[in-house]
Amino acid sequence: MNKEDMNGFLALGKDLGQEYALFTYLIETPIDPVTAGAHLCQEQSTAQWHRVGVEEDFREKYGAKVVSCKTLEVNSKPKIQAFVEGEKYTIAEIKIAHPTINFGPKIPNLITAAAGEGAFHCPAVNTIKLVNVELPEKYLRAFEGPKFGLKGLRRVMKVKDRPFFFGVVKPNIGLPPKPFAELAYQAWKGGLDACKDDELLSDVEYSPLKKRLELVLEKMFKAEQETGEKKMFVANITDEVDRVLELHDLVAGMGGNAVMVNAFPVGLSGVRMLAKKTKIPVVAHFDFIAPFTRMPYFGVKSELITRLQRLAGCDAIIMPGLGKRMLVAEEEVKENVKACLYDMKNIQPCLPVPGGSDWAGSLPKMHEAFQTVDFGMVPGRGVFGHPLGPEGGARSLREAWEALEKGVSLEKHAETHEALRTAIECFGKKKE
Amino acid sequence: MNKEDMNGFLALGKDLGQEYALFTYLIETPIDPVTAGAHLCQEQSTAQWHRVGVEEDFREKYGAKVVSCKTLEVNSKPKIQAFVEGEKYTIAEIKIAHPTINFGPKIPNLITAAAGEGAFHCPAVNTIKLVNVELPEKYLRAFEGPKFGLKGLRRVMKVKDRPFFFGVVKPNIGLPPKPFAELAYQAWKGGLDACKDDELLSDVEYSPLKKRLELVLEKMFKAEQETGEKKMFVANITDEVDRVLELHDLVAGMGGNAVMVNAFPVGLSGVRMLAKKTKIPVVAHFDFIAPFTRMPYFGVKSELITRLQRLAGCDAIIMPGLGKRMLVAEEEVKENVKACLYDMKNIQPCLPVPGGSDWAGSLPKMHEAFQTVDFGMVPGRGVFGHPLGPEGGARSLREAWEALEKGVSLEKHAETHEALRTAIECFGKKKE
Repeated sequence: MNKEDMNGFLALGKDLGQEYALFTYLIETPIDPVTAGAHLCQEQSTAQWHRVGVEEDFREKYGAKVVSCKTLEVNSKPKIQAFVEGEKYTIAEIKIAHPTINFGPKIPNLITAAAGEGAFHCPAVNTIKLVNVELPEKYLRAFEGPKFGLKGLRRVMKVKDRPFFFGVVKPNIGLPPKPFAELAYQAWKGGLDACKDDELLSDVEYSPLKKRLELVLEKMFKAEQETGEKKMFVANITDEVDRVLELHDLVAGMGGNAVMVNAFPVGLSGVRMLAKKTKIPVVAHFDFIAPFTRMPYFGVKSELITRLQRLAGCDAIIMPGLGKRMLVAEEEVKENVKACLYDMKNIQPCLPVPGGSDWAGSLPKMHEAFQTVDFGMVPGRGVFGHPLGPEGGARSLREAWEALEKGVSLEKHAETHEALRTAIECFGKKKE
Repeated sequence: MNKEDMNGFLALGKDLGQEYALFTYLIETPIDPVTAGAHLCQEQSTAQWHRVGVEEDFREKYGAKVVSCKTLEVNSKPKIQAFVEGEKYTIAEIKIAHPTINFGPKIPNLITAAAGEGAFHCPAVNTIKLVNVELPEKYLRAFEGPKFGLKGLRRVMKVKDRPFFFGVVKPNIGLPPKPFAELAYQAWKGGLDACKDDELLSDVEYSPLKKRLELVLEKMFKAEQETGEKKMFVANITDEVDRVLELHDLVAGMGGNAVMVNAFPVGLSGVRMLAKKTKIPVVAHFDFIAPFTRMPYFGVKSELITRLQRLAGCDAIIMPGLGKRMLVAEEEVKENVKACLYDMKNIQPCLPVPGGSDWAGSLPKMHEAFQTVDFGMVPGRGVFGHPLGPEGGARSLREAWEALEKGVSLEKHAETHEALRTAIECFGKKKE
């Protein structure tokens, strides 16, 4: 690209205002990073900006423009692999202002602009990671966001000043509806707020959703009466996108009070469709997000994916949690939690639910790390593999929270609380 | 995991038959790879296989099982990064048989099983790449596959014994419908089979789909009459998934004869929904596939993604093409082309359309690499940036094909063919 061509893609230091979205990329390039940024702009917007023989320039209105470029490192070798040959590799943070008129307030089109062919097939860029998308308020206003959100969940569930206790019913797959409902009942009785289906347990042959709901909801209403607490069942309606609304209607029609979708397998746009029409809270699960977020210097930052799920209207977002077990760094988990809660203008906060082999003993660490009670925890075996059964497992969570509230150690509180004591004996010895 | 627990997840050397799908992973693990495979099976299926205090075992029917493990390398360091600490790292190919009853013939559920939490958050596995999914014929029969496919496209377009010539109308964005239609007309006149919208040009404010179609189709019918050839316009209907069918109906209702969707941004399940109901061929575009397929040893192999698009019912699949420009290795492009054409039982072949800065001179290389005429090419600037305009650009493609058919070099043929000569002069000097 010559200097003159390049200038049409540069607006260094400028604020282009409400008509542009800001995409931030971490790039590794063998060429000058500003030039690489201009190439990125060309590839992701006005690849050819005039007709042959016609004096015109579509770049001004439709072209993406580099607004900032910060060189972070210069190395002799690429971090991962040389997809583009070069003598040195510069790692730079590039901010690109992209006109929203190119894609409109539509998730698939936004994804295409920010992380489509233009971003990932630019021959000037060896590796690229989309690390941020800042959307102007005018653009955000075209989105509905979560219908219930954190506030709605607290209102519906009457859960105040403490985290939410979810649990994945285990054995997670294979269990027929009747024993499934019985296990859920025990966990609710013990103090769980919400029982949920495993990400693989949707409307399956061996446990059709209708049958499962019928038995589970009966037990849920029973547990509500007996405990005086509001209870929730999160029904997994992950299915082909043209069945999702039908399954939602089935759940809501039977008196169910939450649905779950595996957000990326169904498609974020499918999630938005569901969230727009839903009558009950929508919970997202994190399958198929790691494949494009885990790598350093390549793909998309997971925090951004969390924000897109919130934008799409998820009321609660299950995400990989703390500890080595989920292969996600603590800082990244914290960022993902914050991505649910920060001020996103008209898009209200949703509930972050970081999970992964948690049990009662995980609670103090979570509370310490997130510095808020606005989160959910979602143990599986920590409740359903508890030696005293799901009731004891659920009780151990509530007892752990009591200890935190009183400011005593779990060990101390366990001296007089059997479920917690048993949990510590069973799960506390495992290495992190 | 102890030996006894592990055995429930092993079926080494066994063929478990029609009730199982086979998932092949390339894993890097700091532990014994068979044990790592058993962990993967546990995480992706029966994480907890019995109720506390109940003698039962859900693994036999619902558990995934390692059927083969081949160690490929043992290294002292991980290839990319240590997500799991270890003293040595084994790279192995693991085949896992996963019961189809766990997910059923539904794309989101299949993706969850093969590439969801279980596969990508297994603490025994440092990095993982899903490289193959083999589906039993019984399972495949529940899918519709492409409605037109390669055969249907040849029949509809009356294109025999040669590749299909697509072109992306350029300037790709910003152009109002009227000049857009005029450019498309010129390209059709010159010999293009199909003009298509850019991946960013969908139903946008500055070029509403209805208006664009109205003008483009009028020109298309005119070009058909004047050339005596069948022409196609591929209308980009990428939008929120709940608008895709509405936009399809608009296109088909106005006499349009093909639609395009950015498959992953819309969601593969949305593509299947469209393909099931479509009245005209469905073309897929490859945005947001590189983020999870480019990395070595991590993510998903792109060939598999091509096959999933075919399974979802795409009649033509636009994919990154040959040459360094698209950052995809030649072998991978060839595999993706083959993935459209191989015998997939009831799922008929579709048309592979590898693209990326092609022009007339790309044709011999493509033909040589793919060893078939069953492909499409899709230049942008190679047609619409041609110095003689789109008509000359399109003609240069047909002239290049004439040269190939006659067995003469492009240079030789160019001596008597102006459009080809001009293309060589304009595009032939650029480095690959």
